[in-house]
Amino acid sequence: MSQHLQRAIDNLKKMILMVGTVVEESLRDSIHAFLKRDEKLARGIIAKDTEIDQMEVEVEEECLKILALHQPVAIDLRYIVSVLKINNDLERIGDLAANIAERVCYLGNKHYIYIPDTIPQMAKSVQEMLKLSLDALVKSDIDLAEKAFSADDYVDKLHSDMFPFVQEKIETEPEKIPEWLQLLSISRYLERAADHCTNIAEDVIYMVDGKIVRHSQMIENE
Amino acid sequence: MSQHLQRAIDNLKKMILMVGTVVEESLRDSIHAFLKRDEKLARGIIAKDTEIDQMEVEVEEECLKILALHQPVAIDLRYIVSVLKINNDLERIGDLAANIAERVCYLGNKHYIYIPDTIPQMAKSVQEMLKLSLDALVKSDIDLAEKAFSADDYVDKLHSDMFPFVQEKIETEPEKIPEWLQLLSISRYLERAADHCTNIAEDVIYMVDGKIVRHSQMIENE
Repeated sequence: MSQHLQRAIDNLKKMILMVGTVVEESLRDSIHAFLKRDEKLARGIIAKDTEIDQMEVEVEEECLKILALHQPVAIDLRYIVSVLKINNDLERIGDLAANIAERVCYLGNKHYIYIPDTIPQMAKSVQEMLKLSLDALVKSDIDLAEKAFSADDYVDKLHSDMFPFVQEKIETEPEKIPEWLQLLSISRYLERAADHCTNIAEDVIYMVDGKIVRHSQMIENE
Repeated sequence: MSQHLQRAIDNLKKMILMVGTVVEESLRDSIHAFLKRDEKLARGIIAKDTEIDQMEVEVEEECLKILALHQPVAIDLRYIVSVLKINNDLERIGDLAANIAERVCYLGNKHYIYIPDTIPQMAKSVQEMLKLSLDALVKSDIDLAEKAFSADDYVDKLHSDMFPFVQEKIETEPEKIPEWLQLLSISRYLERAADHCTNIAEDVIYMVDGKIVRHSQMIENE
């Protein structure tokens, strides 16, 4: 690999990890904003989403520039294509954090509802999945990537459990139907964020050994 | 452009349009299966999703092969990168069709519920968006692409309207809560399919004139 290409790839790595860091923050803050009903924090997350969108566009442009200028092959080509896709998944996780923040703003001073442990448990798992998949990307480490998506089934299960829970709550506290429906939305956002983390981990595996491991779980559970 | 590259791109075009056709069918059938509660049709859609997944992997491998062998630049490079992304969006629409089919199987012989006109209206709009965005891809036509995503706001609005509708229904027919929650899921799947059609249309614009039009609507409405 030419020195120029090596430098371009190193720079791209820095850029994508910066997106990862900002998205990690947004996700963490969005959960916090929801659990604490912190509208101010929520508004900050929504504002930051524009920044993430801009970062995504810049990473994509950088990938295209490298493809055009350096015409990489083999593992370098896979690296660029993987970054293109990981970039997209990170941006989507950013959107989901913004979606959670929007729910916080919508809830405002509406009824407070009981938040089951499932939500912080899901949040914790998703944050771990994101951290592991980003670590896997930094270290090009397949074991870390596999660890990252091993929690996806657990998150799916927790999300499925929310349906009967919400159903029961709606029956016993029908005056809070909009709030319960919002809780279901939050759970779904977390479950989708876990899906995107899985995509990232799968792309890291593809990047490292060229093996496509997608579609092991075909249909999302929501 | 070399003849070899031209031939490879023509072949890739055929492959991605084939994915588009199969996904269009799945989406159309999934709506039909839901409106008619046709479980047999629904099972067929779920089975076909594996086929779509396989097609997605093949298109992606073809894109990488072209990048590695022909090292395209300028519009050809943008074409390949756009196909990579459109491929992913099509596969996701296929997943959503399979998600709708799963809901049909889940509902089985459960209570029949009143299905508001909103659902067929959303379905019609999403199918039109998909058709327009695929036509835009075939003809590299920016006008068609812009037409494709102009309906996205309308679909978002219809989806938003479902929340108060479902809320009212839950209050008046609480014995059918699971069914009403499923209706909300179907509406959300359609709204997300519209988002993916928008992505495809935006990628066509990028492909044709190199302009990134993403993030005009930052946060999805669900």
